[in-house]
Amino acid sequence: MTFKAPVKDMLFALQHLARLDEINRIPGFEDANLETAQAVLEECARLNEEVIAPLNWEGDKNPSWWRDGQVFTTPGFKEAFRQYAEGGWQGLQHPAEFGGQGLPKAIGAMCTEILNAANLSFALCPLLTDGAIEALLTAGSEEQKATYIPPMIEGRWTGTMNLTEPQAGSDLSLVRARAEPQPDGTYRIFGTKIFITYGEHDMADNIVHLVLARVTGAPQGVKGISLFIVPKFLVNPDGSLGARNDVHCVSIEHKLGIKASPTCVLQYGDHGGAVGYLVGEENRGLEYMFIMMNAARYAVGLQGIALSERAYQKAVQYARERIQSRPVDGSVAGAAPIIHHPDVRRMLMTMRALTEGCRAMAAVAAAAYDAAHHHPDEATRRQNQAFYEFMVPLVKGYSTEISHEVTSLGVQVHGGMGFIEETGAAQHYRDAKILTIYEGTTAIQANDLVGRKTARDGGAVALAVAAQVAATEQALASSGSEAAQAVRVRLQAARAAYEEVVRFIAAQAKADPVAAYAGSVPYLMLAGNLMAGWQMARALLAAEQELAAGRDEAFMRAKIATARFYAEHILPRALAQRDAIVHGAGSLKAMALEAF
Amino acid sequence: MTFKAPVKDMLFALQHLARLDEINRIPGFEDANLETAQAVLEECARLNEEVIAPLNWEGDKNPSWWRDGQVFTTPGFKEAFRQYAEGGWQGLQHPAEFGGQGLPKAIGAMCTEILNAANLSFALCPLLTDGAIEALLTAGSEEQKATYIPPMIEGRWTGTMNLTEPQAGSDLSLVRARAEPQPDGTYRIFGTKIFITYGEHDMADNIVHLVLARVTGAPQGVKGISLFIVPKFLVNPDGSLGARNDVHCVSIEHKLGIKASPTCVLQYGDHGGAVGYLVGEENRGLEYMFIMMNAARYAVGLQGIALSERAYQKAVQYARERIQSRPVDGSVAGAAPIIHHPDVRRMLMTMRALTEGCRAMAAVAAAAYDAAHHHPDEATRRQNQAFYEFMVPLVKGYSTEISHEVTSLGVQVHGGMGFIEETGAAQHYRDAKILTIYEGTTAIQANDLVGRKTARDGGAVALAVAAQVAATEQALASSGSEAAQAVRVRLQAARAAYEEVVRFIAAQAKADPVAAYAGSVPYLMLAGNLMAGWQMARALLAAEQELAAGRDEAFMRAKIATARFYAEHILPRALAQRDAIVHGAGSLKAMALEAF
Repeated sequence: MTFKAPVKDMLFALQHLARLDEINRIPGFEDANLETAQAVLEECARLNEEVIAPLNWEGDKNPSWWRDGQVFTTPGFKEAFRQYAEGGWQGLQHPAEFGGQGLPKAIGAMCTEILNAANLSFALCPLLTDGAIEALLTAGSEEQKATYIPPMIEGRWTGTMNLTEPQAGSDLSLVRARAEPQPDGTYRIFGTKIFITYGEHDMADNIVHLVLARVTGAPQGVKGISLFIVPKFLVNPDGSLGARNDVHCVSIEHKLGIKASPTCVLQYGDHGGAVGYLVGEENRGLEYMFIMMNAARYAVGLQGIALSERAYQKAVQYARERIQSRPVDGSVAGAAPIIHHPDVRRMLMTMRALTEGCRAMAAVAAAAYDAAHHHPDEATRRQNQAFYEFMVPLVKGYSTEISHEVTSLGVQVHGGMGFIEETGAAQHYRDAKILTIYEGTTAIQANDLVGRKTARDGGAVALAVAAQVAATEQALASSGSEAAQAVRVRLQAARAAYEEVVRFIAAQAKADPVAAYAGSVPYLMLAGNLMAGWQMARALLAAEQELAAGRDEAFMRAKIATARFYAEHILPRALAQRDAIVHGAGSLKAMALEAF
Repeated sequence: MTFKAPVKDMLFALQHLARLDEINRIPGFEDANLETAQAVLEECARLNEEVIAPLNWEGDKNPSWWRDGQVFTTPGFKEAFRQYAEGGWQGLQHPAEFGGQGLPKAIGAMCTEILNAANLSFALCPLLTDGAIEALLTAGSEEQKATYIPPMIEGRWTGTMNLTEPQAGSDLSLVRARAEPQPDGTYRIFGTKIFITYGEHDMADNIVHLVLARVTGAPQGVKGISLFIVPKFLVNPDGSLGARNDVHCVSIEHKLGIKASPTCVLQYGDHGGAVGYLVGEENRGLEYMFIMMNAARYAVGLQGIALSERAYQKAVQYARERIQSRPVDGSVAGAAPIIHHPDVRRMLMTMRALTEGCRAMAAVAAAAYDAAHHHPDEATRRQNQAFYEFMVPLVKGYSTEISHEVTSLGVQVHGGMGFIEETGAAQHYRDAKILTIYEGTTAIQANDLVGRKTARDGGAVALAVAAQVAATEQALASSGSEAAQAVRVRLQAARAAYEEVVRFIAAQAKADPVAAYAGSVPYLMLAGNLMAGWQMARALLAAEQELAAGRDEAFMRAKIATARFYAEHILPRALAQRDAIVHGAGSLKAMALEAF
């Protein structure tokens, strides 16, 4: 059950792919150099390896439980959360003026991955709190920021996102929770919210619920939804806690995975109405929530990478220990550790290549976020913002779908033992299943990719990214090594498939929306695959240079082999996806709905 | 939680793909016509829909449990098993002389699928009993057959397969259980067996354990393993039960899925030695066990199809009921049932096409088995035997890997509700995970495909099958319809990829075994994909003929759309697999084992 944070690979991604040196030159990030990153990641690794990771399996065995409106978390979680808060980890990426450390997202993302790999169920509490902080930073009043953000950064309070209702999941236009304006400027909130992560728990003194609801008389649909702060305990002017608010956890769900993370049904206003405070303006709630959701979507992508990394490490360990059968090449005389068998190596390499590829993609996206938000030059900010926004559905959608594949292979490497819960491999497989669902299913990510990120600009950003891929192909051609050559061929083929699909999607989105959207998830998977494969190609070039400079030979050789494996085994999937997207809509439409 | 057996699609597969009319002409199968098949399947459907399927979720909630060496199954299982036995279902495919009904495997396979779709955990008991019956039919003495087979066919006793030990999973050469010869011709068995499905339970009066063990002084490795009958209760000459034998269940496993099916640790000989009876000759145990295992492997393939079917039905039902968002094509004014959304339809079509494709493949393989065992002409028998043996690793490996994809999509269609255990979609996803592991992992199936089924004859059988695929391409060309044309193009491309891979594997198996075996699972997936896609192409041709004859228009149109969907969305995966197999071994070998 051990876990070791992949600090070395993270630093490689920060240095060579995310170009931390460039982020470091942005005003405000003067301290964010490679040495800082290393120190932060190593400290983060220590806490997570020693304190938080050992609670992961415990949380699966002894999930959080509900009694009379209270939720009790797994033994050990409360104390671990205290250590997490005291270490200042909740404020890592948040502004110094509210008690945060103001580090770039590129570094913060790596810490988020480590935390989620250590313990996904635990990590969900800080993750939702991050979302609440970001929403208030964007849309809250100065008073709201001053009241709610510092206690959340200190880890004394936590935050939640309250969107879903029984009839309103992906479709938030169906939200029914209502808000009645009061003479004192506050609102009374009524309604039921479901699937609220850490909606109730015992790890903090207060919980700051951010709630979507309709003000009396508001328009129907998404344009009538407002955002409210509804604290579990009302807050006195001096910041101390006042009366218990009228929001109560009436049950928690019995789930496939992330069992230690309480998934709550919250009932608002059954005893006269919960006191709520409007955030920003009325009827702009969805807009604010999307800010929060975009941050959360990126973070869920990191969760996919985190589970993949954890599953990979576990599988490697088992493959080194389990002795079974003689290798086909006769390299060992008798029964050998199964890592000697070609298919076990293929599975491990697939897990490794997918994990490193997704991590590289996420690192580059985070760097774009930092430049988009902090670079002094406006054109640079705009360009990076467009790139980041294009990448969010890919980081979320691709990395989480991939985590299914990787955690499934993780079970498979363990053979029969993988099916036994005590082994622990199955937990990662179960936990991963939520990642393609919450914060917008893969189809919702793919709708975003097709609609807002591709069709709206006629594919301009998507094709500009392809041009960057082509530039990497040029660099691979210049390298001249056999590995670079092999990668170039596959990268070029995948890029050509991607460009064909982008043009198809851009052309069809209006002309034949069923055809375009029928290909939306395959397009997302193709694009994610290409982006990850592209970053692995850049990693190969960087590793070749490092190798030439005599640095860290074993690591660089492994990176080159992994990049080549990605190109040869994963990138060709793009060809199959291209065919399905471009030629496949007809058979979808031919099926009568009644015939299913 | 309802389930409806897909009798219509099964009859279509039997009539048009498995060619039941040809089986019907084989001496001994004179009664096995389409009318018989329909009557049997409908009766089978009734029992499973009404009695056995409703216990599936119950078994997940209230799994079998152990106390003091006894195992108690889920409430309702015992009574359901009695009904199953009284209906004569255990003897469906077994010889009439032992109380069976002697039906062809083609029909029996459909019943097995229905039973497994209704309740996989329940179905495992009859499945293992079938295996024990087949092993005794092949290698047992006349006395052993007379003693043990009729009570198993009557469902009074059940059977088990005892292969695995803690150190001996895929590698049976490491089996340590030992057998000491006694003066009376019996043996005393000692040792520990793990992962024994229904190794102990309360549904039958006796359990017939078939156990692999080494006779004192036997050679090391697989050539020193013998097969023994070890009944839970010794059997008196009159068939009544005698003394309790020295085999005891010391614990059962806590598993990811199939929770109602007890997975036992059996301890042999702790109280002086379990009485065992040699089956066949000493040291030929593995050979006999493989007979049983081949039947079991095919049946596990059916389990994959069964779970896929069940997951598909559940997903369709939810997609018709769940209302969320307006369709992109504006076909519905407001929020619509999610089946109107293109990506939901893509998911459902993927599930449907994969399920029907695998079922079609399994039906054709079963027909080959029937001809191989019962056809009067020896050349026909030999040819069908070669085809069947080629298909077993594909039916097992491909259909089960596909069941992961289909059951995962099943959860995904349900969105957040899919992650809640009470919804039931997650159970299929958890249950499916064992299918790629037990009765030989996918890698073990792929080793069989590469070694015994491809390399040994230089790819002759594999390429002969490709020639049959090419003949179907000709028929598609003759059809002239747009759908047939679309399918032909994809089928041809996939076949070309397959042929390239077969030649690569046949050439490399000795020259560069790591390269050949590194591609073994991708080769299995490619071959399975082609076989299923080929049968779907044949299904399209048959459906076009039926349509022309004015029969069953809605069903036939759906079949044509599904076959075309398979060709356009699934068959192109072959291209990606071909690339990975033919070009991908280098990066696998480049990775140093220490670098993982």
